[in-house]
This record gives sequence, C-alpha cells and structure tokens, in this order.
Amino acid sequence: MTKIIDPYGSELVKDYEKLIKDFGLEVFNSRGFPKPSRIMRRRVVFAGRDLKIIARCIKEKNPFYALSGIMPTNKELHLGNKLVVENLKYFQEHGAKTYILVADLEAQAARGVPLEEGRKRAMDFHIPAYIALGLDPKKTVFYFQSDNKEVVHFAYEAAKKITLNEFKAIYGAADPGRIMSAVTQVGDVLYPQFKERMPGIIPVGIDQDPHIRLSRDVVNRMKSKRFFFPSSLYHKYTPSLDGSVKMSKSKPESCITIPEDEKSVRRKIMKAVSGGRPTLEEHRRLGAEVEKCMVFELLKQHLIEDDKELNKIYKEYKSGRMSAGEIKEIASEKMVALMKDFNKKLEKAKKQIDKVKFVHF
Amino acid sequence: MTKIIDPYGSELVKDYEKLIKDFGLEVFNSRGFPKPSRIMRRRVVFAGRDLKIIARCIKEKNPFYALSGIMPTNKELHLGNKLVVENLKYFQEHGAKTYILVADLEAQAARGVPLEEGRKRAMDFHIPAYIALGLDPKKTVFYFQSDNKEVVHFAYEAAKKITLNEFKAIYGAADPGRIMSAVTQVGDVLYPQFKERMPGIIPVGIDQDPHIRLSRDVVNRMKSKRFFFPSSLYHKYTPSLDGSVKMSKSKPESCITIPEDEKSVRRKIMKAVSGGRPTLEEHRRLGAEVEKCMVFELLKQHLIEDDKELNKIYKEYKSGRMSAGEIKEIASEKMVALMKDFNKKLEKAKKQIDKVKFVHF
Repeated sequence: MTKIIDPYGSELVKDYEKLIKDFGLEVFNSRGFPKPSRIMRRRVVFAGRDLKIIARCIKEKNPFYALSGIMPTNKELHLGNKLVVENLKYFQEHGAKTYILVADLEAQAARGVPLEEGRKRAMDFHIPAYIALGLDPKKTVFYFQSDNKEVVHFAYEAAKKITLNEFKAIYGAADPGRIMSAVTQVGDVLYPQFKERMPGIIPVGIDQDPHIRLSRDVVNRMKSKRFFFPSSLYHKYTPSLDGSVKMSKSKPESCITIPEDEKSVRRKIMKAVSGGRPTLEEHRRLGAEVEKCMVFELLKQHLIEDDKELNKIYKEYKSGRMSAGEIKEIASEKMVALMKDFNKKLEKAKKQIDKVKFVHF
Repeated sequence: MTKIIDPYGSELVKDYEKLIKDFGLEVFNSRGFPKPSRIMRRRVVFAGRDLKIIARCIKEKNPFYALSGIMPTNKELHLGNKLVVENLKYFQEHGAKTYILVADLEAQAARGVPLEEGRKRAMDFHIPAYIALGLDPKKTVFYFQSDNKEVVHFAYEAAKKITLNEFKAIYGAADPGRIMSAVTQVGDVLYPQFKERMPGIIPVGIDQDPHIRLSRDVVNRMKSKRFFFPSSLYHKYTPSLDGSVKMSKSKPESCITIPEDEKSVRRKIMKAVSGGRPTLEEHRRLGAEVEKCMVFELLKQHLIEDDKELNKIYKEYKSGRMSAGEIKEIASEKMVALMKDFNKKLEKAKKQIDKVKFVHF
C-alpha cells in the first residue's frame, strides 16, 4: 500500500493508515488535482473513494457535484466543519455544482431537535457560517431535508434495499431513529443525480464513512437507476488540544469552536499540549517534538496558508530556536484573527441570507 | 373474561378468545353502540381497544374520527377490506370525520411498488372501490402518504421514541423497510389529531394490531402532545373456502376477491367446505354442521343483511331440511348479485373521482 507521506510527520499517521486498510479507501494523492489546497498539499486530506472520476471531471470540465450537510444541532461549528467547507470550496472553484442540505429531519430523529428550531438555527447561523467560511452563495444550492419530498421518498425505497444485519455491520448498531436518519442521508447523497446523471464527491470526516458505504451499497442494489457511486474525500480530525485524536466538545478546554471569544482562545492554546521540552535548555539543545505538538497541528491544518511560512516555523521550532511559548503566541494571534475575520464575514452573510438560493419543492 | 357469544356458534370463536386474552383487548359489545350494523350484531366485529370513549362521542355528538388506509399493492380487494369499509361506514353515519389514506410510501417500502404506480392504482381502482362499498365521498377525506409531509415528519419523531427491541417485541421482526412503514403508519393513525384534539377509531383486521400497539406506545411517550390513544375495532377474518382460518390469495380457489366474475364465484362456492353430511339421508336425519360451514359464514358475514332471513336459513339448514347444495345455490346467487352491484357502483364512482376530496399539502 502506498504510504501516506505527511511532510510534518504527525504521530497520528499510523492510525489513518489502519483506517485506509480496514475500510478499503484510496490514499489521497494531490498530484491528481490541479492547484491542490492547503489541506490537500499537507495531507490533512488523506484518503477517498473513486477519486479518479472526480479528477477527470475537473480536468475535462464535465459536470459533477459536491455535497455536504449541515446538522443544526449545536449553536457553533467545530474545526472539522471548517475542513469540510474548505474541501467543498475547492471543488466549487473547480467546477462542482455545490449542494448543502440542512439535515433537519435527522436532527429531529437523532437528537430530538424540533423542525422549526432546526430551520431557525440553520437560517440564523449555520448557513451564514458556511458562507463566512468560504462557500460562494451564488454558486451553492441549499435545501432543507424536511422540504425535499424526493429525498424522503427515495429513503423509503432505499430502506427496502437493505437488511437489518447489513445496517448493523455498517453502523455497529441499529435503532429506528438511526435507520431513518441513515437512509435519508443516502437520499441526500444521491439527490443531485435524481435529475442529472453525474458523478459527485462528498467530503467528510472519516467517522462519516458509514453513510458513504451505505450509499454505495444502495447504488449497487439499484442498478437500473444507473447512479454513479458517490465519491468521497476524507480529512483527518483536528486533534484535541490535550493530544488525543479528535477535538470534541466533551472536553471543552481542549476544544476550540467557531466562533470563540479571544480570551478563551488564548487560554486554551496556552494550555495545549505542545512539542516543548521540560526545560528551555533542553528545548534549545534537542529541539521541539513537532510531531507531538497540537499547536503546530493547528498552524498546519488551519492557521497558515503559505507553505513557506509554515516551513520556516517548522524549522525554527524543530531546531529549538523557537520555543513552545513562542509558537503558542503565533497560534493564538492567528486564531484570534481567524475568529475576527469569521465574525465579520458572518455578519455580512447574515444580512444577505435572503439572497441565498434554496431549492423549493 | 366475558365470553364472546357468537349467535351461530362458529368454530373459530376459541381462537379469537385467545387473541383477546393475549393482546389484552376488550370484548366488543354491540349494546354500547346505537343501531349496530350487521357485522356488529353478529359478532364478526369481536373486539377493540378504548371503545367506550367512541361510544360516548357518538352518544354525546362530540367530534371523533375514523381512519383507515388503502395499500395500493393488489389490483382487487378482498372480503376483509369490505368489512373495514363497513365499519368505517358505520362510524361515518354516526358522526365520525372519516379519513382514508393511500399508503403509497408503505407500498413502496414494503412491496417495491413505485409511487406513481401506487397513485395510479388508487385513483383508478381502490378509491372508487371504497366508495362503491359504501363510503360517502362527500364526507370522506382522502390523502396520499407521499403528499403528507406532516405525517412523514412525525414518523421521524416517532422513530426516535422507540427502540429496536420494542419494535421486535411488537412485530416479531425488524428490518429497515418495515420500520419505516410502521412509524409512518403511526403518523397516519394520529394525523387527524395534529390539528384537532379528538378521539379516533381505527377499524382493522386483527393482524393489523401491531400498528395499533405501536401507535399507542408512541402516544404514551409523547405525553406533552396530549394525543388521545387511538381506539381500535377488530373484525374476524373471512375464513378460507377450504375451512382454514383466513381467506388468502395464496389459495386462489378458496378465495373470492372483489370484483370477481360470475363463473369463478359459482365454481368456488360450489367447491367450498360446507356443513353438509356425507349422504343426503344422513343430512336430513342429523342436520347440517353449520358451525363448520364456510358457505353459511359467507351468508352471515357478507351476503344477508336481514337477521330474520339469516335465522330462517340457519334453522332450515341446521334441521337438515335445507341441503348443502341449496345453501350453496343461495350463496352463489347473492355473491353474484353483490359483484354486479359492486361493478355498477364502481363505474359510477370512477366517473365521479374528480369530486373526491383530497387533502392538499
């Protein structure tokens, strides 16, 4: 198997190689894609399924789509959402018809969020936030699951194609709410193909792979509909500031949300697990353990666009010339700037919400 | 437990008493209901749940509803559908707001009937057939499940309230298609209460009781919505002409459908298991075994409206003065007349299909 080459040798690579093997994914190779994005170049995007067909669509300017969903449960985004939007943005800029669905039915089925509440949250925050993160509202089509009869009707059809045991094999568990959510997601994943037969790519965190697998199984059982198998693209988790594999709101002091206020951003980054040595003397002598540094990971995944700038910091830090305190200071400044920029763009997007394109059914 | 008194001592009574005990049903007592219908008087209707509240609504002229569904899978009705329509008609004539839904989503999820095909079948046959059997189209509201977003959205909410194990306990088995069908049916059962809080009764065959139980469980878990528990009313199966418990298309020569042509009606009834003795001499001496006679059961359940007329035949037959051949002749004539009447009314109803009231969503 092709090894994933992380130019900065993050310690998490081993886990991702296991995932690739276990789930039968393709290793992502940025050479297939023109002008790869920051997260593509740095192997934050690490794997996918059926990527060649998408690369070909880009190259030959054939129609394809990129799709993702908003789950209107929380009232803020996490950094994983940001990675998804950046991937969508990449494909949007390379010709993809872009679809964002608001998973209000799922939020209801899985988390008990009433439909009206889900709709309100999406309109007031999630949709403007996705625009603030870089989606072009003029090139993006939004819809609410609860409005989309075609998706729901398809969900009933898809449900007929799978057994309970298959469902359990894919998801590990099965309950009525989860089943309804999952088959509805299959409808969403394939929805752009209902009217126009074309390949599509779904950028997701690796934990969302079950939905992709279920969708591909359903496509396989509906041969007469001649759907393209949905392609997928996986990004790594942004690790928790305490060094564990995934940033999560269950550990709020190790998790940065979008938006987040300056004071708590600075406090959390200052407390983060870094690559610094026990003493400054040791640090200068041995250099930072960059591969264990959650702060460098933030710079790499989210905060520094320019590769040269990142490389410079990497070298300074690795050599011990830059201290953990200094790198934390850089990360704090940049994260605070990111939040300011986000808030400004969010307010602007909120004012333009009436110009957003919704599919009406 | 109150015994069910079948005035004609059908041998099937024992089985129904077991069902009542196992499922915790109420024994149906026609005294609670004004002008009980033929099938109520004769204990074809044998049990229910929460019947008193419906009897009270009738007596006090309070609002209540009666609801049933059309499953547009087959291209004809069976005699069990006729019993359901007769029960609906009874409640309609006693003040119930009457709802008939076309279960097109379920027909798709459970049997793979495409939505367009289900809709066409319902418009061309099932809805006119229900009117031909006695429903007043001016007093009945029809809807298609696939149009009714409120029902589908409620299904997602209901799914969240039940576990897979509960589902298995009620239905014996669980698979994704069945789960989606069932929670959608819960939405249908409660739909008239979404806008107007009132009791409702669902007349069903006993094999449909799982849907009633699931609906009642869901009501119980959604206390804040203050739904009335749906009441239900159960009729016996029309037995198979070969003497087994339920008429079924799997044994076509023992099953009479609606409509059915004269020739096959006569042929099937002539071959039916009767109460006749091996020889005419014995028959005259011992009398017919009426409780084993499937032909008398047809007269009782479906073909003779007047109790005096039925009683007279019962006595003649029981005493041996009337032969099995004679009772078959009577049943054949009446069944042929029923089919003629149905066909005439069906053609008339088809012509008036544009006057049927549909809920538009």
